[in-house]
Amino acid sequence: MDYASYLKLDTLLSAQAPESARRGAEAHDEMLFIVIHQAYELWFKQILHELERVARIFSGRVVDDSELGGAVHAAERVVRILQLVVSQIDVLETMTPMDFLEFRDLLVPASGFQSEQFRMIETRLGLTRAARLRFDGADFDARLDAGARARIEAAEGRPSLREEVDEWLARTPFVEMGGFDFRTVYDAAIERMLKADIETIRAHAQLSEAEKQVQISSLERSSAMYDALLDDSRYETLRETGAWTMSRRALQAALFIFLYRDEPALQLPFRMLRALMDIDEQMALWRLRHALMVSRMIGRKVGTGGSSGYDYLRGSAEKHRVFTDLFAIATFLIPRSDLPKLPDAVRVQMRYRYEG
Amino acid sequence: MDYASYLKLDTLLSAQAPESARRGAEAHDEMLFIVIHQAYELWFKQILHELERVARIFSGRVVDDSELGGAVHAAERVVRILQLVVSQIDVLETMTPMDFLEFRDLLVPASGFQSEQFRMIETRLGLTRAARLRFDGADFDARLDAGARARIEAAEGRPSLREEVDEWLARTPFVEMGGFDFRTVYDAAIERMLKADIETIRAHAQLSEAEKQVQISSLERSSAMYDALLDDSRYETLRETGAWTMSRRALQAALFIFLYRDEPALQLPFRMLRALMDIDEQMALWRLRHALMVSRMIGRKVGTGGSSGYDYLRGSAEKHRVFTDLFAIATFLIPRSDLPKLPDAVRVQMRYRYEG
Amino acid sequence: MDYASYLKLDTLLSAQAPESARRGAEAHDEMLFIVIHQAYELWFKQILHELERVARIFSGRVVDDSELGGAVHAAERVVRILQLVVSQIDVLETMTPMDFLEFRDLLVPASGFQSEQFRMIETRLGLTRAARLRFDGADFDARLDAGARARIEAAEGRPSLREEVDEWLARTPFVEMGGFDFRTVYDAAIERMLKADIETIRAHAQLSEAEKQVQISSLERSSAMYDALLDDSRYETLRETGAWTMSRRALQAALFIFLYRDEPALQLPFRMLRALMDIDEQMALWRLRHALMVSRMIGRKVGTGGSSGYDYLRGSAEKHRVFTDLFAIATFLIPRSDLPKLPDAVRVQMRYRYEG
Amino acid sequence: MDYASYLKLDTLLSAQAPESARRGAEAHDEMLFIVIHQAYELWFKQILHELERVARIFSGRVVDDSELGGAVHAAERVVRILQLVVSQIDVLETMTPMDFLEFRDLLVPASGFQSEQFRMIETRLGLTRAARLRFDGADFDARLDAGARARIEAAEGRPSLREEVDEWLARTPFVEMGGFDFRTVYDAAIERMLKADIETIRAHAQLSEAEKQVQISSLERSSAMYDALLDDSRYETLRETGAWTMSRRALQAALFIFLYRDEPALQLPFRMLRALMDIDEQMALWRLRHALMVSRMIGRKVGTGGSSGYDYLRGSAEKHRVFTDLFAIATFLIPRSDLPKLPDAVRVQMRYRYEG
Repeated sequence: MDYASYLKLDTLLSAQAPESARRGAEAHDEMLFIVIHQAYELWFKQILHELERVARIFSGRVVDDSELGGAVHAAERVVRILQLVVSQIDVLETMTPMDFLEFRDLLVPASGFQSEQFRMIETRLGLTRAARLRFDGADFDARLDAGARARIEAAEGRPSLREEVDEWLARTPFVEMGGFDFRTVYDAAIERMLKADIETIRAHAQLSEAEKQVQISSLERSSAMYDALLDDSRYETLRETGAWTMSRRALQAALFIFLYRDEPALQLPFRMLRALMDIDEQMALWRLRHALMVSRMIGRKVGTGGSSGYDYLRGSAEKHRVFTDLFAIATFLIPRSDLPKLPDAVRVQMRYRYEG
Repeated sequence: MDYASYLKLDTLLSAQAPESARRGAEAHDEMLFIVIHQAYELWFKQILHELERVARIFSGRVVDDSELGGAVHAAERVVRILQLVVSQIDVLETMTPMDFLEFRDLLVPASGFQSEQFRMIETRLGLTRAARLRFDGADFDARLDAGARARIEAAEGRPSLREEVDEWLARTPFVEMGGFDFRTVYDAAIERMLKADIETIRAHAQLSEAEKQVQISSLERSSAMYDALLDDSRYETLRETGAWTMSRRALQAALFIFLYRDEPALQLPFRMLRALMDIDEQMALWRLRHALMVSRMIGRKVGTGGSSGYDYLRGSAEKHRVFTDLFAIATFLIPRSDLPKLPDAVRVQMRYRYEG
Repeated sequence: MDYASYLKLDTLLSAQAPESARRGAEAHDEMLFIVIHQAYELWFKQILHELERVARIFSGRVVDDSELGGAVHAAERVVRILQLVVSQIDVLETMTPMDFLEFRDLLVPASGFQSEQFRMIETRLGLTRAARLRFDGADFDARLDAGARARIEAAEGRPSLREEVDEWLARTPFVEMGGFDFRTVYDAAIERMLKADIETIRAHAQLSEAEKQVQISSLERSSAMYDALLDDSRYETLRETGAWTMSRRALQAALFIFLYRDEPALQLPFRMLRALMDIDEQMALWRLRHALMVSRMIGRKVGTGGSSGYDYLRGSAEKHRVFTDLFAIATFLIPRSDLPKLPDAVRVQMRYRYEG
Repeated sequence: MDYASYLKLDTLLSAQAPESARRGAEAHDEMLFIVIHQAYELWFKQILHELERVARIFSGRVVDDSELGGAVHAAERVVRILQLVVSQIDVLETMTPMDFLEFRDLLVPASGFQSEQFRMIETRLGLTRAARLRFDGADFDARLDAGARARIEAAEGRPSLREEVDEWLARTPFVEMGGFDFRTVYDAAIERMLKADIETIRAHAQLSEAEKQVQISSLERSSAMYDALLDDSRYETLRETGAWTMSRRALQAALFIFLYRDEPALQLPFRMLRALMDIDEQMALWRLRHALMVSRMIGRKVGTGGSSGYDYLRGSAEKHRVFTDLFAIATFLIPRSDLPKLPDAVRVQMRYRYEG
């Protein structure tokens, strides 16, 4: 056992084969291009490893709290890795367009869009085939080889992180517990807040009538969205329009967790939700930075895979987000000082036994 | 002279006045909210200070190379500061939506959109009134006070960085020099490249006919765009559609600089162009991260200033870019190994006298 | 209420008064020098604001878990702010030594060592006067004015974060609870580990005898250190040598928390300890980067305050660490799979009531 | 040609073989441990690739300026990669000590100190065997296998980057050119500065006599150091004590470049020197962060390779720096406004022919 054999460095460090060198005219920067993409793929493997851990923990009916800590830890590590891979783009941008052109044509028709692992990460997080942008008029996996396509399809058949989180949230015990129904206490609070907001706007000296109307309409829309949370059929109507993707129960639980996150038993669930939002944000940043880098490298040309990569990446930064519902929940939060007190019988259940 | 008096710390550190404390119920996180926005404004002041330096250098008819170094240094410093202010958002995101709600209503109708310095940075870079997104149906500066509005308007009357750079590029001596005309050597080279690209695609075994057609059309569009670079009236037609914003001469010079940037006299100009692209990229990242942060903080509510901040910021990340032409130029680059050799008479002019 | 008045921008943005401009020959980079130090001071104020929050929470005899979450949040925010201020040095390093020399002499005898807020942060964290390096043969606060010195001395009279954490740890209930004594189960486990380690080394084919001896001595030292944890008087002897700074009970509790951190009731305490280690690490990085920046700026000259800043900063990166004990505890951890099971009666106390 | 075959992903992604899994009890975090070290090794390979490029350019007797741009670009890329690998430590720190202990014993006696590529980077930069810290009483390469040791020794026989830069600097033409001798103009300037500094200190009201003496001695030491620059034998005496490592001519040229870096022909040489300082700084940060991470992971235990890794890394952060002379030069800079004007005959040689 030594360092080199443990890390299989012989294998690892012989896997860089610049095509330009093979053809007799080495382009200096092709090594960077290979190394950075290999580093990406190593990190993608690690991200999938962590997502599997989360999936394993959530797949059980009951998520034990000592395990939930492990799931949060894994999700937070994914965030940290994503921050790293986003910052790797800084290194890639030290390659100038003309340095890239030296070997670009040799890569046709290979393309970063063929990264099976990145597609797998998207799928495992919960990006569905239906929600994906088309890619040059074809499915996102049309360019993958048959084996990769089959593995992606198999993954689509498994519950994604989004689905697992949805089910876990829907099971949150405290939202309704021993006669307590969170909605009955919260409905009044949020209605009060929305009404007070409308009053504030109406009474405002510095706002024009038109501006007031914009704000009041927005509040009324929020109010209607909230009302729909209370009613299955109205909620499903909204969900079909894509306004929500989570189940109604899960959404309520997430709201409950955001509101009462200081309670001991909700601190880990809160961190889990925050990590999911962080993952969503980092994925969006990755796509935007990737788009800007592509536009810097090849201008308005098509990519080596024959695609209008910039438009696709730019669009996906917005459209391929998975946990937007968690961001939207902020619409229905109220200040902590206005928060209805939970009944003691519920509160004590969320505390540790030794202090309960 | 001591540290505290030099930095006017008495003044500086007494300028944090949380509104919640004034009203008798201090919200812990309001201090962070104030401090981070004050830090932003300090950095905005520094950015404007650096942009003034660049403007001063470029305002002369001849930009001396020892001064150009100073302009590049200032522009690169702006990039570095923008990277810092983007990363400051990480700190702001440690504030959760409910912590923000504790004092949010006290801020109405103040809004980050009222930052005069940020609007000034945009204006000085070259974002024109016409190119700006409307903001709740009003001009971007409708919410500024009269003094700030007047200062912005005055700035709009001065040449912006984009305009100064355009004029400086248009004066680049080497593009046409003593009988040499860059276009005559480059036109043939780029036509060769585009034709070869089309051949490669036609002969391709793995691409479908539809895919081939997509790529070929794209190349033909590129070819037409390039042709327009050679003809004033066709170029102006394209420019009116917004396809280009720079002047034709400046664009040609920028292309020349990208291509021959290894020549000693072009190394600083190249770094200047790269810094401008970096500024553009960092501003886009700032807007996107800002948008994501707003959506995380208030969901789908309107902002404290009564605006749909998320949509505005999201849109501006794309629409408010200033130096997109420099990105688009990459379309017309060719590999260094295919680059036409410059005549010795031109080349020697770009070298230092001692080695010329 | 508008943005500028809320943030007191008139005051804030008129507090930059370059000394070089006052003397009639503005040095461009003095603005950067002022702005970056003012940004530091704003962040230092925020760090102190967060440390006060932590102190308030810990000052009570019982730290309620819903409050502990707040303390952890504040400590983690301090970490994030420190990461930001460390990265600010990248911006300062865009100033070259000669640009600094343009105004450096005007600052004499002011010096960054006169930052009261930074000294206050050190003091509030728990850096004692006795543990501090001398500074040009004088006390660290000799250069502060009388008011600042008095405030630092007053702060030295209050319990520091280190002391508060020590008391809080010492009260951890589970370490000894209802007949259970953590040490009795752990002593055996760690002795087993140390013995097994020694066996492994002795049996090793590839290690030389000398190398084996180094490793075995190190393990024996560790063993002696651990033994001392069990005995008040031996522990105090070690503590007087500076080998430990925490109390014996607190150290045991910290070890317990590290080992059983997956238990629900220990997850927040674990994050608190980790945040303290992160603070320690970031402060060390700040000092080292600061030292390197000073050496880059003025070489081997003395600083504007007349001090050998590099040596002081370099030394303090190592000597001014406050939470080294928490790092050292890792010496006494064992693999999770060898961890003695806690009695059910103890374990259940660390769980939430609803699942207990 | 597709993405997976181009990047040899089959090979790359099958090179992670956790030892814990092989022994039947997979430790989740071992994958992270392997992936991050493999990512390091990929980046080390890239750094060596860039250093080879620099070496190739500098190995010629004349470094053409269009090539010098390439060398600067490569060195600046090394800086950027080092910043990335330093920030990778943030990811590694998501592994807690107990997670590491799960598989740590399986790695004995492998150790990160066996990384041939890292030792090669140090050697290629210019860290000599004599300047290296001993490692458990043995040479730094005692733990490497015979092949690696031979390759390191071969590299020690080649000129290092430090040596190549020294020779390149020593050839800088402008320092003495056509009757001009930089020293004769600069000696007076620096003597004036040092005398003026001493006067300023003597006249100072707020400094104590003791403090004045400290500052004056420091200035006198600087003065003596500068004087030695003028005299071969005194310089060699200092060099033997380790006060300087560069040759006297190279040091003078570096000083000249720092002072007149605004001249066109010196801008690239200045950036080269700055990149070397950045490399030195990032290597020091890497070592310090590495040391802190080790101490966090294993406390005061010895490492898997049997070494006191913390002390070694901590010491090497200071002792293994290669370009400290470039930092020390700042001691002898003077404000730009006091800088002696160069004779026109010299200046014009540093300008481009077209504007000369």
